[in-house]
Amino acid sequence: MTYSSNAATPTKSQWLSAVEADLKRVTRKIRDASFLNDQLLDAAVTMILEAGGKRLRPTITLLVGQACHAPIDKLIPVAASVELLHTATLVHDDLVDNANERRGAPTLHTQLPLGVTVLTGDFLFAQSAALAAEADNVRVVKNFSAALVSICKGEILQAQTKWQVPSSDIYQQRIYGKTAALFEAAALAASLLSDLPEPLIQAYGHFGRELGMAYQIIDDALDFVATSDQLGKPAGHDLREGHVTLPAMLYIENHKIDPVAFIEQVRNPKGVEEIIHSIRENGAARAAIQAARNHIQAAEDALADVEQGPAIEALFSLASYVIDRDF
Amino acid sequence: MTYSSNAATPTKSQWLSAVEADLKRVTRKIRDASFLNDQLLDAAVTMILEAGGKRLRPTITLLVGQACHAPIDKLIPVAASVELLHTATLVHDDLVDNANERRGAPTLHTQLPLGVTVLTGDFLFAQSAALAAEADNVRVVKNFSAALVSICKGEILQAQTKWQVPSSDIYQQRIYGKTAALFEAAALAASLLSDLPEPLIQAYGHFGRELGMAYQIIDDALDFVATSDQLGKPAGHDLREGHVTLPAMLYIENHKIDPVAFIEQVRNPKGVEEIIHSIRENGAARAAIQAARNHIQAAEDALADVEQGPAIEALFSLASYVIDRDF
Repeated sequence: MTYSSNAATPTKSQWLSAVEADLKRVTRKIRDASFLNDQLLDAAVTMILEAGGKRLRPTITLLVGQACHAPIDKLIPVAASVELLHTATLVHDDLVDNANERRGAPTLHTQLPLGVTVLTGDFLFAQSAALAAEADNVRVVKNFSAALVSICKGEILQAQTKWQVPSSDIYQQRIYGKTAALFEAAALAASLLSDLPEPLIQAYGHFGRELGMAYQIIDDALDFVATSDQLGKPAGHDLREGHVTLPAMLYIENHKIDPVAFIEQVRNPKGVEEIIHSIRENGAARAAIQAARNHIQAAEDALADVEQGPAIEALFSLASYVIDRDF
Repeated sequence: MTYSSNAATPTKSQWLSAVEADLKRVTRKIRDASFLNDQLLDAAVTMILEAGGKRLRPTITLLVGQACHAPIDKLIPVAASVELLHTATLVHDDLVDNANERRGAPTLHTQLPLGVTVLTGDFLFAQSAALAAEADNVRVVKNFSAALVSICKGEILQAQTKWQVPSSDIYQQRIYGKTAALFEAAALAASLLSDLPEPLIQAYGHFGRELGMAYQIIDDALDFVATSDQLGKPAGHDLREGHVTLPAMLYIENHKIDPVAFIEQVRNPKGVEEIIHSIRENGAARAAIQAARNHIQAAEDALADVEQGPAIEALFSLASYVIDRDF
């Protein structure tokens, strides 16, 4: 990508090899937990699980678990719980956003009645709660339910601030709820299972939170700069749907545009194309990516005091992947 | 009610007085946990919380807690958790069933966009999970997530068996998920917080389960025999919506009616009126109520070995109320 400062984009293989075998156990656990014994429903759930993609969240749990020597038998259900919670939110989000596709796969609500889609999401929430409880650790469960509360609040906030230019504070709250809360929980769930002193336990949560903030900002930037093929939807999709994200916010700030006039232009089919083109070309998207880099730096700084080793290297490699990914 | 075998219907005051003060603490806890700091959403959530009605589930938790000397500071959040979980399921169920009213109050999805309704239900689920975790007891949390899984499975099963005559086994599974799983969890959450030996802990869960089965069967019977004023909707509403419940199943069995022909008649506006009239008048509803009585007997039998006292008397009084209520 043209905006990358690294010569070589890190590949998934650098961090994936460290967790590959454990990730297979996690995937089996997720499949078992999401089985509903109904042909139509199970096919739909399998499709959404596979469309979920990169398994970043359980990978974070597994790598943090390796780094702080947490017991693997507890890490597996917790990593599965994190990914299943992510999947449950995708089911409801796609419904809320009325999205027809996710990474090329048809979304659940396009294949099932509305009610069954809502209930299937609820079922996946329920099973992710049950998996979190399998670790037999009250703090892990509290961490899990706190993340779920943050996710819901973030989604509600996003729905409420549609067709508005959010303040920086509201945007931060939104992306924390939308993404960073679960990245934080994924890391913290693992460190809570260790014998580390409290400040180091929290350091991993801090790492996860900053990584999640970066991930979501990159997502918001890619929505402008990636190609339609990479995104599986036209560039500027979020803005067309009324979600004003960091690149647009920076564009508004840099050009001293009146927020009301901006929203008016966005609602105009020709106007929105012009804005998307400008954000893509004039540096606003690039400035957003720089903001994401700052979060990655903060994530790496958070782990300054932990014991270094291959798992930490793999986490840093994953962080580089998050910032330099194409889509 | 004409089908009651008791001379006097027990009043709510008999069991309510035993928990009134604690129930106020529970209600405050629920209000705090469901506060979203949004005028429209909070008004809608308050309305659905108040329409929830009788607070039977947290009352069960509090009474079982009294009976087995569980610490009140842990009982309060757990009782709040149970009621909030119930409320969350109401929000999604009303959406799934496309119901416009609940006990005279407009349902959430008639006042809010679909997406916000789904997310508000999710938020209430999340907060109920957080409240359950406040008891700092892993078994309570596992009990909670197992109940949530059963509820979702029950709701999905109900959606899948719409416009079908269910087998007795499927009907039992449905009403367990729809109602009895949470009654069971409400009782078990309290006994798990006690120092009782395991068989007595389980006895309370058994009591809750049987009480819940009775409660749902009575609900299904009242849908035929109560007046429209009592129900807030025309009698036979479930059947009109394609949900075949115990009174209809007994009617089909007694009259050796072909299930396919039955469903055909139900789908016919004139046909369904005839069926509802027959079930109401010819004893099928009464036979269903007898089945509920058997569950109440089983509930009382489950507590044969526990220490008797005023809390147990109050639980029995609540059980009588469940069977003899008018609506």
